[in-house]
Amino acid sequence: MKPKSTYTSELPCIAIIGGGSWATAIIKILSEKELKIKWWLRNEEDVNYISQYGHNPHYLSDVQINLRKVKAYTDIRKTVEKARYVIMAVPAAFVQQAMQGLLPEHLAGKTLISAIKGMIPGENLLVTDWVERDFRVPAERLCVIAGPCHAEEVALEKQSYLTIASQSIDQAADFANLMSCRFVQASPTDDVYGIEYCAVMKNIIALACGITHGLNYGDNFQAVLVSNAMQEIKRFIDHIYPKHRDLSGSAYLGDLLVTAYSQFSRNRTFGNMIGRGYSVKSAQVEMNMIAEGYYAVKSIHEINKEHKVSMPITEMVYSILYEKTPPHTAVQALKEVLR
Amino acid sequence: MKPKSTYTSELPCIAIIGGGSWATAIIKILSEKELKIKWWLRNEEDVNYISQYGHNPHYLSDVQINLRKVKAYTDIRKTVEKARYVIMAVPAAFVQQAMQGLLPEHLAGKTLISAIKGMIPGENLLVTDWVERDFRVPAERLCVIAGPCHAEEVALEKQSYLTIASQSIDQAADFANLMSCRFVQASPTDDVYGIEYCAVMKNIIALACGITHGLNYGDNFQAVLVSNAMQEIKRFIDHIYPKHRDLSGSAYLGDLLVTAYSQFSRNRTFGNMIGRGYSVKSAQVEMNMIAEGYYAVKSIHEINKEHKVSMPITEMVYSILYEKTPPHTAVQALKEVLR
Repeated sequence: MKPKSTYTSELPCIAIIGGGSWATAIIKILSEKELKIKWWLRNEEDVNYISQYGHNPHYLSDVQINLRKVKAYTDIRKTVEKARYVIMAVPAAFVQQAMQGLLPEHLAGKTLISAIKGMIPGENLLVTDWVERDFRVPAERLCVIAGPCHAEEVALEKQSYLTIASQSIDQAADFANLMSCRFVQASPTDDVYGIEYCAVMKNIIALACGITHGLNYGDNFQAVLVSNAMQEIKRFIDHIYPKHRDLSGSAYLGDLLVTAYSQFSRNRTFGNMIGRGYSVKSAQVEMNMIAEGYYAVKSIHEINKEHKVSMPITEMVYSILYEKTPPHTAVQALKEVLR
Repeated sequence: MKPKSTYTSELPCIAIIGGGSWATAIIKILSEKELKIKWWLRNEEDVNYISQYGHNPHYLSDVQINLRKVKAYTDIRKTVEKARYVIMAVPAAFVQQAMQGLLPEHLAGKTLISAIKGMIPGENLLVTDWVERDFRVPAERLCVIAGPCHAEEVALEKQSYLTIASQSIDQAADFANLMSCRFVQASPTDDVYGIEYCAVMKNIIALACGITHGLNYGDNFQAVLVSNAMQEIKRFIDHIYPKHRDLSGSAYLGDLLVTAYSQFSRNRTFGNMIGRGYSVKSAQVEMNMIAEGYYAVKSIHEINKEHKVSMPITEMVYSILYEKTPPHTAVQALKEVLR
């Protein structure tokens, strides 16, 4: 049976930009629906591999790509050409580079969805703000996909939940419908900024959890750290975008928990290495992966220079990563202000 | 240097009722201060062992008991006789039995402190309400010690935080002062009911986390479960005792996290066994320990018959433990209502 779309009875075409775990997981979810999925990856080799073998060679390689529905490209204009939805799923640090072949007219009339949990480097801009500014996509055609959702568990078809945010709640509901399947339940919300900032900030908190764990602080301490972090995130978001929001929702608290407590979290792992004495450089080399929190903490620190919200956890992480404060000293100071 | 007491310059005498891990951890904390500590245990043998060797033979046996400050008793009247503070630290299921040798006059003028995270069995009463009713201790002389605090980490002197609740904030601050030391920071609050109910309910949630983990649900699911649980706890507490409270505080969210995510949690372990197919009876026999959540869920279920607050997670746990609903079926139904 063909799924009902609220827009049209035709099969919608969706473009996905990015070749990592999260992009692969989203493709797996969307493949549960009758859709045409166009997948942009940077490397010709990867595109060929996927087209030939039906697997992403580098990430979530166990996921079977349904080639009847999914076609891979390296040409980004061709990828987005007939798409009604364009999902951005690359690390924030690479999104400008990935999208550089696109002009505003290539995205005219389309809905852009950010699956990115980070800020535009150097600009301190949320991804949706950047797309609105540089590609002139109106706010009501912008969505955000928020967790709590490790790609690795989606690959295993473990029951997961997503939240889709858009200033147009109808738009959010429509896309949430597309992202719901046997093992994923997606709900709409209109709190785009709250969801997006929380997704960025939770990576900073995961770094803090990793750092303190690396310094041998225990579960008691982490529980207090995460509680205080929720208050810190609320202070910041409510200050920047005042709105009634319950931060114990899955997309806020849940997203923080899955990142701060899970074995799959890169940010926690990165922080853990820092806590154990690795330098930033050597931790990055060792992990061979981007920990989004590393960039996020710089952006939030800079944004907050203007707002001056009390953010002791964020400031601790910043001082360790960017001001060479020894982790031990920085955590000692934080210890005194936690409650 | 003698610590300053707000009451008098004499060394205060404190009585502790209970021989388990938490009682032992509290004694370790209080031993950092110049206090006289009188410790009641049920068995003569344990009292003799402690008096001779300076260790609790059964729980946290690595903790060195400072016999210059601590004296163990089996006579409960003698234990509380000169104590200004009496701390109850036995499982809720045993507190009536432990206190049966005491009459209201034995506790006159003393401050009673509950370190118990459960309800009086058969009565569906919070411990402080029971002490107030049966021992006529006025509310302003009642305190509650709340986590997030695993006894095992206190034994290791890992930095921990406590919250002390009393309707008299001065009383709470005074006792928080006594419970603060090198590795513990205690803060006062006046939300006795909120703290006490949350401490009871978090054990139910830890059971739910264990059950779903035992059924192979993953981290994504648990993050959503815990987020929904915070909302469920808030609905219930705000309904029963309306008051402005921020549930992301350490004593609420933190206490839930340390129980729901930690390896030390008995309730999570018990739930996990149920999820994997053990019967309630065999899980109890296997663990040889009381999972407080098993009793708590019955009390909360019964209390809520009157209030009818929407509590799908609590009801799921109740139906599995008391109505023989297969865990798989019960979680399937819950899955649909989580967001």
